[in-house]
Amino acid sequence: MPEVTPRQDLLVGVDLGGTKILAGVFTPQLKRVATAKLSTKAERGYAAVLERIDRCIRDAVDEADLSLRQVRGIGIGAPGAVNPETGEVLFAPNLRWKDAPLKRDLEKLLGVPVFVENDCNVCTLGVHGVELEGKPQSLVGIFVGTGIGAGIIIQGRLFGGFNRTAGEIGHMVLEIEGPKCGCGNRGCFEALASRTAIFRRLSDAIRDGAKSQLTELLGPGEEIVDLKSGDLRKALRKGDKLVEKVIEEASEYIGIAVANVINFLNPQCIVLGGGVLDALQDDMMPIIVATARDYAMTGTDKGIEIIASRLGDEAGITGSAVLARQGLKT
Amino acid sequence: MPEVTPRQDLLVGVDLGGTKILAGVFTPQLKRVATAKLSTKAERGYAAVLERIDRCIRDAVDEADLSLRQVRGIGIGAPGAVNPETGEVLFAPNLRWKDAPLKRDLEKLLGVPVFVENDCNVCTLGVHGVELEGKPQSLVGIFVGTGIGAGIIIQGRLFGGFNRTAGEIGHMVLEIEGPKCGCGNRGCFEALASRTAIFRRLSDAIRDGAKSQLTELLGPGEEIVDLKSGDLRKALRKGDKLVEKVIEEASEYIGIAVANVINFLNPQCIVLGGGVLDALQDDMMPIIVATARDYAMTGTDKGIEIIASRLGDEAGITGSAVLARQGLKT
Repeated sequence: MPEVTPRQDLLVGVDLGGTKILAGVFTPQLKRVATAKLSTKAERGYAAVLERIDRCIRDAVDEADLSLRQVRGIGIGAPGAVNPETGEVLFAPNLRWKDAPLKRDLEKLLGVPVFVENDCNVCTLGVHGVELEGKPQSLVGIFVGTGIGAGIIIQGRLFGGFNRTAGEIGHMVLEIEGPKCGCGNRGCFEALASRTAIFRRLSDAIRDGAKSQLTELLGPGEEIVDLKSGDLRKALRKGDKLVEKVIEEASEYIGIAVANVINFLNPQCIVLGGGVLDALQDDMMPIIVATARDYAMTGTDKGIEIIASRLGDEAGITGSAVLARQGLKT
Repeated sequence: MPEVTPRQDLLVGVDLGGTKILAGVFTPQLKRVATAKLSTKAERGYAAVLERIDRCIRDAVDEADLSLRQVRGIGIGAPGAVNPETGEVLFAPNLRWKDAPLKRDLEKLLGVPVFVENDCNVCTLGVHGVELEGKPQSLVGIFVGTGIGAGIIIQGRLFGGFNRTAGEIGHMVLEIEGPKCGCGNRGCFEALASRTAIFRRLSDAIRDGAKSQLTELLGPGEEIVDLKSGDLRKALRKGDKLVEKVIEEASEYIGIAVANVINFLNPQCIVLGGGVLDALQDDMMPIIVATARDYAMTGTDKGIEIIASRLGDEAGITGSAVLARQGLKT
């Protein structure tokens, strides 16, 4: 654990998710000092979640034997559309929030400057700022989990777009006549390759009579869709043919989406992360990279890196700490 | 025609295409003074085309009763991958060029600074700089003709991407199992909605027995694929049901591609141009806009303009003049 002197100016990064809150304490050089975790309890409403974010941050600081007075800034990644200038969460369906003044309310509770961004943007900042040491001038981070989202870095800075919603790559249509998506359209990337889509395909195939060892992993009353990405890895290691086929297909869809990004935006680097990739990196990345290079126009992918993030579920807290550091500088 | 004083510093914009060369003389305020046109004759090789570009530029200047000594800079849009720093055309399949030092060779012939960019980038510059007076901070120009390409403006400047190939939106996959594209993949945007794709669909349908007034427009020995976008407009005006259906489908594909751009990059403005749009704007734009807004995630398209360019086939020369003006400033 890096040593922290009492006078050091610390940063806190918070990953606010629909089911859990993660908080990390970081040195100004972005070395992690301590973390804490709490369930979100979104169903209890905004005020209750606010109190839990506050508690989770204090827990992380206390875990490191430090005081909140040593914290110079707090960054938060929230699952939805965010206005980073005002620190409002405009719309976060998983939290049931609309126009929530998160920055203002947390600053009141904690007495420390707070910076808010979209969760995928924050993860992209973490990968860019810490894992890749800020080197790529342009980068797209694609995060495959329950849903699929992305963050875009151009000229070394986050690009939010006109409505601060850039990076909604999960709703890029890849197959017009494809499966129905939660958004109402058909064939969105998210409806083809998210964890939700993968488990729906597996569940449908098993119901139609396909054999899979996944059924042996089910607890009493559990269904296929209740399993986790890690269970897929276990099934793959045991040579499960159905899981292998579905993961291969999902990897191909991800590869095509990566090629679309290369053809259209041509960033220097594309980084893949999120729960599905974190669990199945070794199996998926070779297929993703081969498919992406196959679908990219000749010459367009030359020298462009397509890599998996190593930050795992720390991408969010790390990126939020980067966000806080950037916010304090400007 | 704007008045030009003998001492004025003029700009020349050149639109270098696979079949024709257009050159325009512009005032420093980007008012057009005169134009000239020449066939490209790409089959005669690089040196011959170079001589024809030189001649076309001199013709345009002469047409305006001016002298080449009054020209301060020349911009050129070339159909392929370009390195704008060196002014080389790296790869232009329609011209059969590879690593052609266009800037160097033209400067030698003309004695005037020359600036080279990709043709879609140049058209986007023209729309942004002249038609929209440089106002949108971010903009994507999508040009639908024989093929489909795009140009991207971010923070008011062209974004070329890591390999200078950003904007290859024609090879964004929209329908994985869709029709074969010239690039070797399936379901590319270009294979669904370019002029080539539209005429292929019409031709296939007519061969399969569908009725269309297009057959009446054919000259001796001509086939459907030899017709022009303007012929489609004529058929639509006469109530041709087959053409109506195919144009409606193409417009929907374009609308979905526009939505993909809104969801992913979220630019302030999306402008549509190119031969197909220039001829069929009134019929296609309502369907394109409605489809794009339908497929864009809720809230992401708020305030984003989706418009058709009014520059028509002058987008190229106008944008090339903008390019020259920008190049002279830096």
